[in-house]
Amino acid sequence: MRTLKITLAYDGTRFVGWQRQADGESVQGLLEEALARFEGGTVTVHGAGRTDAGVHALGQVASVQLNCGHDVVTLARGLNAQLPDDIRVLAVDEVAADFHARFSARSKTYRYELRHGVIADPFERAFVWHISERLNVDAMRQAAAVLTGAHDFAAFQSAGSHVSGTVRTMTQSELRDRGGRLAYEITGDGFLRHMVRAVVGTLVEVGRGFRQADGMAALLQGSTRAQAGRTAPPQGLFLVRVDYH
Amino acid sequence: MRTLKITLAYDGTRFVGWQRQADGESVQGLLEEALARFEGGTVTVHGAGRTDAGVHALGQVASVQLNCGHDVVTLARGLNAQLPDDIRVLAVDEVAADFHARFSARSKTYRYELRHGVIADPFERAFVWHISERLNVDAMRQAAAVLTGAHDFAAFQSAGSHVSGTVRTMTQSELRDRGGRLAYEITGDGFLRHMVRAVVGTLVEVGRGFRQADGMAALLQGSTRAQAGRTAPPQGLFLVRVDYH
Repeated sequence: MRTLKITLAYDGTRFVGWQRQADGESVQGLLEEALARFEGGTVTVHGAGRTDAGVHALGQVASVQLNCGHDVVTLARGLNAQLPDDIRVLAVDEVAADFHARFSARSKTYRYELRHGVIADPFERAFVWHISERLNVDAMRQAAAVLTGAHDFAAFQSAGSHVSGTVRTMTQSELRDRGGRLAYEITGDGFLRHMVRAVVGTLVEVGRGFRQADGMAALLQGSTRAQAGRTAPPQGLFLVRVDYH
Repeated sequence: MRTLKITLAYDGTRFVGWQRQADGESVQGLLEEALARFEGGTVTVHGAGRTDAGVHALGQVASVQLNCGHDVVTLARGLNAQLPDDIRVLAVDEVAADFHARFSARSKTYRYELRHGVIADPFERAFVWHISERLNVDAMRQAAAVLTGAHDFAAFQSAGSHVSGTVRTMTQSELRDRGGRLAYEITGDGFLRHMVRAVVGTLVEVGRGFRQADGMAALLQGSTRAQAGRTAPPQGLFLVRVDYH
């Protein structure tokens, strides 16, 4: 058995998400089917992060154990020939036997793309959250900065989650303004369910003036999900990269 | 009666093209329906260029004569509220009574987006022609430069066209290389049916080494459609802007 690390990008628009579901096409499912053709048998891949329906990836990572003897370049090319064109394998690498895409990850980086202003761009409607009013970017930036460090993110976790702890450490939480287009980037050692979208929804409420930037700190101190902002829509969210030790 | 100039952008992916057809949704048809709600009666718009199915616009222009008294800002906002989000009205302007989007146009600019290299980008597959081999960009650029000036473009006109003359004047024909991504831009006083896509298909054959850059000049001297290259696919093509006197 060999262990492989597969780095991939996908447009999440039409998928039920990364994870295989009873109905609908998933990225995991399509990748497993493509790998099964090389392996000649059932294959299970593990993803670094379970992106939701409509969420995209620029650098998702999957790990898999295989017997097949193809070299990594042939495998990458062959997988791209099998996969639909909204999923692309960027790299296949040989890794140590104990490598696991999720458990070996040191940090993950997500980006959320926003636009504010009157007219939406018809070419990016599947990849951005468009908000027709102007947002107060300075206030949003202040609120975003509060999230770096180790905090209890329980207020940003969707109901129905079953994880033991809700403390995570963020090393980056930054909003960049590129002339009407805002990119929020967050890097951390782990993320709760819907956490990035709940953070972005809260930041947008700050930008709209519905809540104060300095209210962000209180949300990290034992607040409930109802006290934070609404979950932002999925199409603006990208899993940018996963870093390993 | 007042005459209005409407500037609009659209993602052409799901449309049968600009022009109203017996079946399928057209940009013209949707715009006319949206305008009819303000006018309270049937409306006919004229477009500057009839983009084909799958072709996009960053700045298509339409002209229309209306009786309704709404100011242009209200009209623009109202049209965007009616139209699907893959069509956006960028501006509505009052113009002289004799303004006609097509006949008053001085020049039109089209852009064709190409990518070359091994791995396609899953986010731009609806907006670019991806070519997996590396192209000879210098040869393509040489061939593109030949097209500026007044020439007979009969070799780049699709069969089934019924126009009297085939001489058109190009003021720009330029290929820009942005690291794996190529943008071909052409400006002219008029374009024959499928002309830009036939030009791009021919340039790509030059880039692949299937034809010589200096063969381009001969194509402008009484050649037939069969002697030029194949028509490039629609999704890389954008009507960038229309200029008026």
